[in-house]
Amino acid sequence: MITEGSNLLPSGNKPGKRYARHILFGLVLVLVVLATFSHNFTLKDQRSTLFPGFLGGHKHPKKKNVIFFVSDGMGPASLSMTRSFQQFTDGLTFDHMLNLDEFFVGSSRTRSSNSLVTDSAAGATAFSCGLKTYNGAIGVDPNGQPCGTLLEAAKLQGYLTGLVVTTRITDATPASFSAHADRRSMEQLIAQHQLGEYELGRMVDLMIGGGRTSFYPKGAAASPYGIRGSRTDGRDLIKEAVADGWHYVGDRESFNTLSEGDNVKLPLLALLADYDIPFEIDRLDSEYPSLKEEAMTAINALSKATRDSDQGFFLLVEGSRIDHAGHLNDPAAQVREVTAYDETFKAVVEYAKNSDVETVIISTSDHETGGLVTARQVSKAYPDYLWLPEVLAKAQHSCEYLARKLIQKKLQTSETSKGNLVKFIKHEIVEAGLGINDYTDEDIKELESLIDTPGFLMDKLTDMVSFRAQLGWTTHGHSAVDVNIYAYSNKDGLKSKILDKLGGNHENIEIGHFMRNYLGLDLKKVTEMIKNTTHTQEFVSSASEENYFEYIPSFLKEIEI
Amino acid sequence: MITEGSNLLPSGNKPGKRYARHILFGLVLVLVVLATFSHNFTLKDQRSTLFPGFLGGHKHPKKKNVIFFVSDGMGPASLSMTRSFQQFTDGLTFDHMLNLDEFFVGSSRTRSSNSLVTDSAAGATAFSCGLKTYNGAIGVDPNGQPCGTLLEAAKLQGYLTGLVVTTRITDATPASFSAHADRRSMEQLIAQHQLGEYELGRMVDLMIGGGRTSFYPKGAAASPYGIRGSRTDGRDLIKEAVADGWHYVGDRESFNTLSEGDNVKLPLLALLADYDIPFEIDRLDSEYPSLKEEAMTAINALSKATRDSDQGFFLLVEGSRIDHAGHLNDPAAQVREVTAYDETFKAVVEYAKNSDVETVIISTSDHETGGLVTARQVSKAYPDYLWLPEVLAKAQHSCEYLARKLIQKKLQTSETSKGNLVKFIKHEIVEAGLGINDYTDEDIKELESLIDTPGFLMDKLTDMVSFRAQLGWTTHGHSAVDVNIYAYSNKDGLKSKILDKLGGNHENIEIGHFMRNYLGLDLKKVTEMIKNTTHTQEFVSSASEENYFEYIPSFLKEIEI
Repeated sequence: MITEGSNLLPSGNKPGKRYARHILFGLVLVLVVLATFSHNFTLKDQRSTLFPGFLGGHKHPKKKNVIFFVSDGMGPASLSMTRSFQQFTDGLTFDHMLNLDEFFVGSSRTRSSNSLVTDSAAGATAFSCGLKTYNGAIGVDPNGQPCGTLLEAAKLQGYLTGLVVTTRITDATPASFSAHADRRSMEQLIAQHQLGEYELGRMVDLMIGGGRTSFYPKGAAASPYGIRGSRTDGRDLIKEAVADGWHYVGDRESFNTLSEGDNVKLPLLALLADYDIPFEIDRLDSEYPSLKEEAMTAINALSKATRDSDQGFFLLVEGSRIDHAGHLNDPAAQVREVTAYDETFKAVVEYAKNSDVETVIISTSDHETGGLVTARQVSKAYPDYLWLPEVLAKAQHSCEYLARKLIQKKLQTSETSKGNLVKFIKHEIVEAGLGINDYTDEDIKELESLIDTPGFLMDKLTDMVSFRAQLGWTTHGHSAVDVNIYAYSNKDGLKSKILDKLGGNHENIEIGHFMRNYLGLDLKKVTEMIKNTTHTQEFVSSASEENYFEYIPSFLKEIEI
Repeated sequence: MITEGSNLLPSGNKPGKRYARHILFGLVLVLVVLATFSHNFTLKDQRSTLFPGFLGGHKHPKKKNVIFFVSDGMGPASLSMTRSFQQFTDGLTFDHMLNLDEFFVGSSRTRSSNSLVTDSAAGATAFSCGLKTYNGAIGVDPNGQPCGTLLEAAKLQGYLTGLVVTTRITDATPASFSAHADRRSMEQLIAQHQLGEYELGRMVDLMIGGGRTSFYPKGAAASPYGIRGSRTDGRDLIKEAVADGWHYVGDRESFNTLSEGDNVKLPLLALLADYDIPFEIDRLDSEYPSLKEEAMTAINALSKATRDSDQGFFLLVEGSRIDHAGHLNDPAAQVREVTAYDETFKAVVEYAKNSDVETVIISTSDHETGGLVTARQVSKAYPDYLWLPEVLAKAQHSCEYLARKLIQKKLQTSETSKGNLVKFIKHEIVEAGLGINDYTDEDIKELESLIDTPGFLMDKLTDMVSFRAQLGWTTHGHSAVDVNIYAYSNKDGLKSKILDKLGGNHENIEIGHFMRNYLGLDLKKVTEMIKNTTHTQEFVSSASEENYFEYIPSFLKEIEI
């Protein structure tokens, strides 16, 4: 087991060891000067012997930040849909672009080791470990062997590390950077790894997102955290984390005390929902922060904590729920998710522009979700060549929110006042919620009949929107289309280097390789260190195995139907 | 009317005027030298007064070729589908790429002036005139005013010009470069413009494709050209063209006499089918050349003709029927169309690599067609995360070919031998044609019942393939997703310039602007010259107006049902 004192760890954040490091650094400088006079002198070997963690890999160590954005489930059609939606809602000209568009450099091929259509676990492991693995694999290779991740290697080399998401922090994407599990459903084990309960100790300095559920016990009705703990081992990881020194934040009010990152004590564990933070279209700002707030809080906290360090930070920012809107085939929710992601990206680029630390920002998707097409044939006759963003602009809530609201209403409605339920469906759900007034009595009857089957109910709600907008979907799962790569650096020379490596069409693993090489990380060494890590969970997992790829709206876990 | 002797025309191809030009060129050089000593000397103005056609626009005139590829209807999903199909059929590794992939530089936003979803006419006019116009517009602006095209401006500045397609040469994409018409259905007028019957005279030096129908009279049963002439004015444009000096080629045998371009007398009119050249999956090499053969014949002919010229050529190469396969939702046909296009692109890049003429090759799509998704939910239960290229590999013909074959068979089958028809459907259509053996009796009954409604018959045939391959489609029309841009130049310095201008995300019109600027063309001047061109057709058009966006398989015009 590697501890904070081991050779692999630079002392960047530990003032007590800074003096020793300066001496070593001076020595290295002498070696560099010597090397310029002697071709036989193998500088690289000498360096790594002297100071293996710090220098291994790159020749000119200097402070760097990498912020890696993942737009989960965002395919090419989501982008043109959102761009046109913005043009419509804001009255902009045809050449209005998304913030991301300006930074478009290439595209990524997404297949996993066992399928032409990847899931988010194999997709994220392609980035984090730089290798193709099977669908469902969290930081393990095709043989189920744990593989060292960018986040772990960065931490071991002295960077601070963070994860920012809008879904469960134990979900596939953040998990693949910070845990090792045979199957993505092993979220209890993933939570343990994320808190440092494995060979490497604590590798994550900051986590902001949802997903309290895997951190506290099932049936803990009196829990101070939430209402749906799901741990089957009875452990309260939040309590343990606080005892271990984590700064815990569990709701909007205490999140506000972080003062946008100025008032963070690392390590930070911010778990702001049992499962997901609500879709942007439904989010009450008084109850949940936005993705942009989360990301900027993280960046400010990490910047502050590395201010006096020679090393920067590695941060993952995931627009997690673009994927959920895709799974639900909910275009009104998705355009707002993509917009929130796009605004977050812009804010982070602005941050980097004003930072004096060399910063690389990369954004890509793991895969497309939903088979979204910005066109739909609405009759057997020939389709019109158009789609209608105004329909999405009128919709005020996600199908998830509206289905939950309708199910709650039914539970509160007696058999004798069924007429009230019909009125509620018409006025509250369809007119106010979906923004649709040209519905038929058959639509209302169908919605009423589907209340006890929430999946079909949500399908009907989203289809009423998609049909009118003339948007098509072909699946509730993922698709194999290439996804976009965006990149930015605040250092001019770096831009052409990034374009050279990530411009054009690439395998998803090459994005991981780029970050590894840029930060000078040795993933193989980490893989060696974690070969005995527990990655197979013996106790019952928190999600049913059959559904482990599926997105299940959290309200279905919160409401008994 | 502008003739070959006008000021706008350089004398590049006319040896008799070369001596005079050399004197003028010498004069220009003197002016350049003077300019370096005088800031007040406005070189550009002097140049354009002295030698307006030749020098207008670019500072260092030199020989250039531009080959512009349009993959009609090819969206991002068509590419990942074809890549995986090739990996499967050829047993290649996961990182096998298409030839195009290597040259991927950016993406294009495709909306037209009047819709978020463009058609091919507005899409091609965005490239040819560099402006957004309405769906259906052929080389006219949103007000219906003719706009000067790249092809016309290039010709007027001394380049040779060509059009290579696999559909009708009068169809939207080639038409938008070489004609001006309010509506794309005016193919009779388009054919007249293409042969030079308008203000500018003949602008096209070479045409290879299908589409004889708009060149000879309707009902000309004894026609030497084909069986379905559609001109309503009784004119035989082919006869007129030959009389005007065109080298006419009307079938495979006479195409072979062109000796891959070595034996071409310009202008060349090669019309190899009444409507479309068959899909690649159905094409008999003994009857029709491939897109690659067409393109290389054109390039060799144009190279040879410009060998002793100071000007090169502008050539449009269209993979026309990727779009048709999309309209029909036929994935087995589409993968072969994309592969044929990809191979053609490779061959042309190879040509450019070996050419000593500075050459720029650009490839893009006008739009996506069909709403193809490389994933499909085949049951209400959760979809698998995969799609199956082997299903496409087994299919041996397009739905268009098989529907035609089945309709012909029914016409030949008497009521009393209906059992033979059922056997034919099972063995010839489904097993041999689609490569499907797990069909049901219901499938066969349905196919039999749909023979008199060819549209539904083709839908059933393609759906049997798409369903098994787990591929989804959402429309028989187009969609709004961004499409890819690919680029190559054989001149090293140019590559970074192209990347600078076309790398990243762009409006489709910017691709036109790039080619205009690269070739130093003055489109405004051409627009001025053609302001009185007839673009409104008074006689009855050859296609019904209501269906002018739709792809109608030619066999439906060839067979009376």
